[in-house]
Parts: sequence; C-alpha cells; structure tokens
Amino acid sequence: MAILITGVAGFIGSNLARKLLSEGKAVIGLDNLCRGSMANMADFAQHPQFVFHEIDLTDLASYQACVSQYALKHPISEVWHLAANSDIPAGISDAAIDLRDTFMSTYNTLEVMKRLDIPALCFASTSAVYGDLGERLLQEDIGPLFPISNYGAMKLASEALISASVESFLKSAYIFRFPNVIGTPATHGVILDFIEKLKKTPDHLEVLGNGSQRKAYLHVDELIDAMLYIQSQARAPLNYFNIGAGDEGIFVRDIAQLVVAAVSPHATIAYGEGDKGWVGDVPRFSYSIEKLRKLGWRPKLGSVQAVQLAIKQIVADLSRA
Amino acid sequence: MAILITGVAGFIGSNLARKLLSEGKAVIGLDNLCRGSMANMADFAQHPQFVFHEIDLTDLASYQACVSQYALKHPISEVWHLAANSDIPAGISDAAIDLRDTFMSTYNTLEVMKRLDIPALCFASTSAVYGDLGERLLQEDIGPLFPISNYGAMKLASEALISASVESFLKSAYIFRFPNVIGTPATHGVILDFIEKLKKTPDHLEVLGNGSQRKAYLHVDELIDAMLYIQSQARAPLNYFNIGAGDEGIFVRDIAQLVVAAVSPHATIAYGEGDKGWVGDVPRFSYSIEKLRKLGWRPKLGSVQAVQLAIKQIVADLSRA
Repeated sequence: MAILITGVAGFIGSNLARKLLSEGKAVIGLDNLCRGSMANMADFAQHPQFVFHEIDLTDLASYQACVSQYALKHPISEVWHLAANSDIPAGISDAAIDLRDTFMSTYNTLEVMKRLDIPALCFASTSAVYGDLGERLLQEDIGPLFPISNYGAMKLASEALISASVESFLKSAYIFRFPNVIGTPATHGVILDFIEKLKKTPDHLEVLGNGSQRKAYLHVDELIDAMLYIQSQARAPLNYFNIGAGDEGIFVRDIAQLVVAAVSPHATIAYGEGDKGWVGDVPRFSYSIEKLRKLGWRPKLGSVQAVQLAIKQIVADLSRA
Repeated sequence: MAILITGVAGFIGSNLARKLLSEGKAVIGLDNLCRGSMANMADFAQHPQFVFHEIDLTDLASYQACVSQYALKHPISEVWHLAANSDIPAGISDAAIDLRDTFMSTYNTLEVMKRLDIPALCFASTSAVYGDLGERLLQEDIGPLFPISNYGAMKLASEALISASVESFLKSAYIFRFPNVIGTPATHGVILDFIEKLKKTPDHLEVLGNGSQRKAYLHVDELIDAMLYIQSQARAPLNYFNIGAGDEGIFVRDIAQLVVAAVSPHATIAYGEGDKGWVGDVPRFSYSIEKLRKLGWRPKLGSVQAVQLAIKQIVADLSRA
C-alpha cells in the first residue's frame, strides 16, 4: 500500500514524507513546485520507496490520470492533502489564488479519491477557519465560523466539502487544524522575515506592528507527531482536531529579540503601529488543544522553545545554502 | 439606484423582484434559465423599472461585462445573490453542480462587486450549513459546521468567502439562512412531488421514508418580508440570521394527508422505510429564530398553515397551466 502526499515539496509535506519513509512506508509525492522545491526533498528524492510527480492539482484530468497510473502498481491507502496557498496576504489581494490552490486542489483531490475509491483523507486545515472570535477560547466545536481571510475561507470550504464527502463516499477523514508551524525548510513566516531583514540591514530590524501580537507556535516535528498520533487513535468517520502548543504563545517583540540575539546581537529593533500585521491576520487568539490532550497527545516544546529551536535550525540552514 | 438580483427567474428570486418593483425600486434581474423560467416573471417582465438578462454567472468575464453595462446607467446599491443549485440530491451524485452553481456563482458575484465597487450583498444561505447536529437547537452561533450535502458545503463555502470579503472590501453583507420555503411558483419540493405523483396515480400516493420526518416550512411571502426587515434593521458589517417558522414543523405524513385531501381525497398513502429521504437530507432539526425575534420580526403563519396555503396556491397554479 502507498500513501499519497499532495504538496510534498513544501515545508510540512517534505517533513511528513521523510517521516513516513523512515517508517518503511511507500510514498507518492505530488507538487506543482510553485512554492515547494526539489531542494526540500534532496535527502529522500532517491529513496527507493519514494516517487515524485510534478503536477498541477487544479487540472482534474491530468491529476486523475497521474494518480491512476500509480494506483495500478500500489493501491493507495490514504491521501495527505497538504497542498495549498501559504501566502495569506497574496490571497487577500487576489482571491483567485486561494480559490485555485487552497480550495480547488481539495475539490479535485476528493474527486480523484471518489473515482479511484481511495478510502481515507488526512487534511491540513487551519486555525484561520475560526476567524476573529475575540477573546473566546477556540475549541473545535465553537461557532460561528466567519474567516477573515480568503485562505481561512477556502480552508473552511474544503472542510465543508470533506464533511459532505464523508456522508456520501469517503470512508474516513482527519481534519487537522494547524497552528502557526515553524521549523525547516522555512519558506515564509515571521522568523525567516526577521532573519532576511537582518541580513540586509545587520544593525537594524523593522517590525511590522507594535510587537504586542502574541501567537503560539508549534515545531513541525511535533505537528507531524500529533497528526500521526491522531490518525492512529481517532476512529470516527470524520475526525477533527486543533493541533497546537497549548500555551499562551510568544510575543512578536520576543521573537524579534531572539532572532536579533542569534543573528545580529547589536541590531536595534524599531516597531510600527497597531496590533495587526496585515488585513486578514487575527491579532491574538487562544487556541484549545484539550480535545487532543484527551486523546492522549501533548507537545514537548512550548512556543518559546519551539521558536528558539526553529531560529537555530533556520540560521544553520541558511548558512549552509 | 438599482438592485441586482441573481437567480431572478427562480422561485424566490421572482417573488423578490415582484415585491421590490411594487415598492418602486429599479431591478436588474439575471438568470441562466436552467432551473428558473420566463414564465415565473410573466407578470412583471415588461415592467418599466425591470430589466432581465440571461447569463451564466460562472463565466466571470461576461458576468462583469453585463453588470458594468447596467451599472453605467444605474448605480447598483446592492446585490441579492439567490442563484444556486436547488436540487440537493443531484449535487450529491455530481459535486460539480454545487461547485459551479452554488459556489462559483458566489465567488464570481463577489469578484464583480469588488471590481465595480458595489457596497452591499444579500445572500441566500441555508439551514443546511449546520449539517446534522442531532437534537441540538440550531442557533446561529452553534458549531461545529459540518454540512452533509455538497449543497450545504458550497453554501457554507460561500458564507466563508463573504465573511472574508467583508474584512477586505465589502461594505456590508446579509446572510439569510433559509428554512424550507414553500409557495408558488413551485419548482421542487415535497408538496409538488406529492401533487405530481397523485396526478399520475390518483388513487395512490407513495411516500419516500416512513413519514416521521418533521420539518418546519415558511411561506415565501414571509421569507421575503423577513429578509427586507433584517436588511432595514440590522447594521453590522456582517449580519447573519436564521429565518424560519419558529415552530416544531409538520410531519411528512401530515403533508401527505393534506395534499391527498386537497387533490385526490380517496387516494391511499403508502410509506417507505427509515427516516431519511435521501443521502444528505437531515432527518429532523430544531431551528432557532430567536435572534430574528429579538430584532423584532416574527412569522404570521406556522408550518401547518404555510403548507395549507402553499398546497392551495400550487394546485391553483397547476390548474391554470
């Protein structure tokens, strides 16, 4: 049996593929290589249990043809659908980006699964489906769900279609609502931004917003550990879990200071105004992982430790490049 | 100023257009005439304040060109986006139907509104966004939202995109979550089904399911009254309301008996098995209209009275045809 991963060349997809291969699984990886890259898969691209196919998931006919061809050799037990737009601000200026990459990629994945009779889907959803619910604790069953970015909207749309599919043809689905995830290979996000800014101006770091934004961060290794744990333990047709660090998070100003300390200790930090980085960015939220704790999983690292580890890994990665 | 209605030739669209014209408003009506028909608009098609344009909303370029042309003459104050697939079972066997007619029509409507700077959207959503939450009272802020039909999924997807649009460019939006709506011109639904079955076999009515399904029904005149009331009273950027009869509803077996009494009093009724009519049909739910009551609106007819009135109107309509 083989496992199909969409978005395999991206940040989370490449880490997941590496992990599954290390456990002896056969992996079929798909990616359009727009945001992901071959470099992210360099260490396992030649693995005998791994095949990679460059493909645009928004072209249903070629998506189906491609998966059929592999399914003939190895029956596919499950799809991990991780492909999506990861640039939230870009998706707000142009809704077509999230329509295509975040939603139509899910729609087509479900169509292919229906036609080829693939029973299980693992889906990368997001805390952004909750929109801005103010100070309320974000547990999985909260409502209403009014996302404030097209990214969040198209992830919620994907969840809705998965839910309807479980009612009609899909055997089982796992919806993982991701927090902010960090680690390597870093493709975007505040840590990479700060490091790259400091490379250009080593004595000076400009921070978007006043630094009072607080967010929880989870390291990618822990995210993958949590997903595989959920998949092995949760048994409903439709399973949905928040995944996160489960703490209050870390302030942007603390991230800025940690990055400065690691990269350019003498740099001064200048803050902007307001507590929102950009339109569609939820300033602060409290994310419950109680349901996941009850299932028996908890993170080993808090947000601050995860950020420290990620800074170290990203800096090491960049110095090798 | 003019008001744009999509799906104007359908059941609710045609009733809304008639009402707005009677209030002296100028109405631009769009429809692809797949499920709607010119006959539904016969009494107001020649109204001097009304223009109709047959168009496929899923073609963004021609949608925009069409609306631009009218917007040059009459600035458009608001869009009532009612166009959607209305055949839930069809959308379950072929997800492409709801993708296109229920979701992409909304996506394109928002794109046109963004490009032409139209400030307000009124949107026909549905109780189907709630999925099957068992015995829980369906008030607007309940969660989780896991629809069980592609129709419900693509309405929730539309809501999500509207919500994100309010955050970025749309001035105001009204999301109306419709109950089962009845009246004329009837295009589908249990009353019409029963009447048509009895026309074929006047001595015999076969009911899908055991008749124990209970649903609340609202008459279309009351639905429109409620929507216009909400629009005049609610003032948030994003307003969302359940609309309904606010009662426990009527059993399918009672509808069967009322139809038989009105159409073919000597017919016998035969029931099937189970309490679900089809995949994706929520067997029973309790729909709260407390939020709408608090705003100051309440229905004049209960579900039973609404069904009685609708049967009378549909029978009269069919005898004229």
